[in-house]
Amino acid sequence: MTEDPFLIAGIEAGGTKFVCAVARSPGEIIEETRFPTTTPEETLSEAAAFFRTMTGRHGGIQALGIGTFGPADINPRSPGYGQILTTPKEGWKGFHFVDFLRGQLPDPLPIAFETDVNAAAIGESEFGAGRHHRNVAYLTVGTGIGGGFLHDGQALHGRMHPEIGHLAVPDFDRDYGKSTNVCPFHESCLEGRACGPAIAERWGQPGSELPADHPAWELEAKYLSVAAVDLTAAWSPDVLLFGGGVMQQEGLIERIRAEFTLRSGNYWALPSADDYILPPALGQQAGIVGALTLAQRIIDAR
Amino acid sequence: MTEDPFLIAGIEAGGTKFVCAVARSPGEIIEETRFPTTTPEETLSEAAAFFRTMTGRHGGIQALGIGTFGPADINPRSPGYGQILTTPKEGWKGFHFVDFLRGQLPDPLPIAFETDVNAAAIGESEFGAGRHHRNVAYLTVGTGIGGGFLHDGQALHGRMHPEIGHLAVPDFDRDYGKSTNVCPFHESCLEGRACGPAIAERWGQPGSELPADHPAWELEAKYLSVAAVDLTAAWSPDVLLFGGGVMQQEGLIERIRAEFTLRSGNYWALPSADDYILPPALGQQAGIVGALTLAQRIIDAR
Repeated sequence: MTEDPFLIAGIEAGGTKFVCAVARSPGEIIEETRFPTTTPEETLSEAAAFFRTMTGRHGGIQALGIGTFGPADINPRSPGYGQILTTPKEGWKGFHFVDFLRGQLPDPLPIAFETDVNAAAIGESEFGAGRHHRNVAYLTVGTGIGGGFLHDGQALHGRMHPEIGHLAVPDFDRDYGKSTNVCPFHESCLEGRACGPAIAERWGQPGSELPADHPAWELEAKYLSVAAVDLTAAWSPDVLLFGGGVMQQEGLIERIRAEFTLRSGNYWALPSADDYILPPALGQQAGIVGALTLAQRIIDAR
Repeated sequence: MTEDPFLIAGIEAGGTKFVCAVARSPGEIIEETRFPTTTPEETLSEAAAFFRTMTGRHGGIQALGIGTFGPADINPRSPGYGQILTTPKEGWKGFHFVDFLRGQLPDPLPIAFETDVNAAAIGESEFGAGRHHRNVAYLTVGTGIGGGFLHDGQALHGRMHPEIGHLAVPDFDRDYGKSTNVCPFHESCLEGRACGPAIAERWGQPGSELPADHPAWELEAKYLSVAAVDLTAAWSPDVLLFGGGVMQQEGLIERIRAEFTLRSGNYWALPSADDYILPPALGQQAGIVGALTLAQRIIDAR
């Protein structure tokens, strides 16, 4: 077998599953594996074992990119860099993701550590629906709601990183005789109202079982269009990508576009919502391709 | 008189008044003038005349920084760079601010063109309440509501620039038996609900005449605390500065802090609201100091 000395590795670290990949380039994945997220020690050991096996089989891995669920300390200047922060996820709060993983890997490997959504935005900006754009917003609507933003090509971090799941939203539930809110922290935030579990709790069955003409989707589009308005106001992106499990629902993106257009009142000097609010072109692969892109950028910067 | 060959100039271009200054450094203003904003030709000619006189009196101006009301095209790569965009302000829509001004000034003068609020954020980050911070958010609450953000020291532009006056906010008016909204575009946006004219319309008298214990301020703090939550979620700033005429109201910032703390539900890993939500240290000078800082940066980059 021919060894390829310039392999890159990526991890999409999700709250429910991990995706690990080894690739020749972000667009050329050689092997990929998926497994459930359990304890940090178990999960990261499994990731490390995969990379060690791949190194034996394919040659040396030169860099690793990680897109992680959050909140996480992604600031390389911070003493807590590489750590998962205040997650309710059992065992992960305060866990030193990067340090632990580094200890499990054979060689000193340069590692990039980003949020899953910033990684997805980077993946989409290089290979997907954000190509030709410098300002790419990526939202994921699933078990939780998160968002990342590339500003002029650079991931927005700020003090920590955006946490757009906790944007304040009006109470639209009232108009439907409902009052669902699954966020334990906030009276009415985007995630509390519009994540997958909120849909399931509100209507008594998961969104995937609700027909396309169910009022659930009209209500969901109201909440998500408020997020689109707020992020247009705060970030001024070139494109707003909506990904994640909930967005698999047929017709939902069209409803969001229509609601966004209504709520925008023709104020923003934007292209048509059809060219502004888009599904990610890489689909479920955006995160892992983004993680690999982070690894590729380490190599390119050498 | 000794000529100083390294003078810088600044313009804070507001919707109601212009401030022009000539300085040795952003902290050392030699002369400053203020006049009402009328037509673009008249107003910019007056600014140019001031700078020409100052040049005669003090020596050469090396660079000019402008912080302007918006929306404006502040992207140097755009064909419309230097232009005011869709403002309702008579005569200014589509006006080529930078080109016109350049034509009125004797020598080829390097000009930086920013939003007023980004300029204020830059001023505060260099000399005011944002010192020692890389991620500084600046809001102004006055005739309108706007906000700027320095991300890792760089002004956030995106496709155009933030327009946080149009963040979607819940209808809190209802709880007070009111329904004021002065924005012609949006059902319920921050500016429509919480700018100075909205306060005056809602209560029948300007905010400056309402006592500190008037319910107006409780309501105002609710709207502004939602903006604080949304911008924490979207920008993740180190500090959030609240400036502008409405913020002169005694006790208002304390009310915003209390409402923000309540609405945050202890979710964000932030310092106390007393160290996070701050008045601008430069007060009404933030904008012009920021404009001068833009000019200084041109010189420093040479």
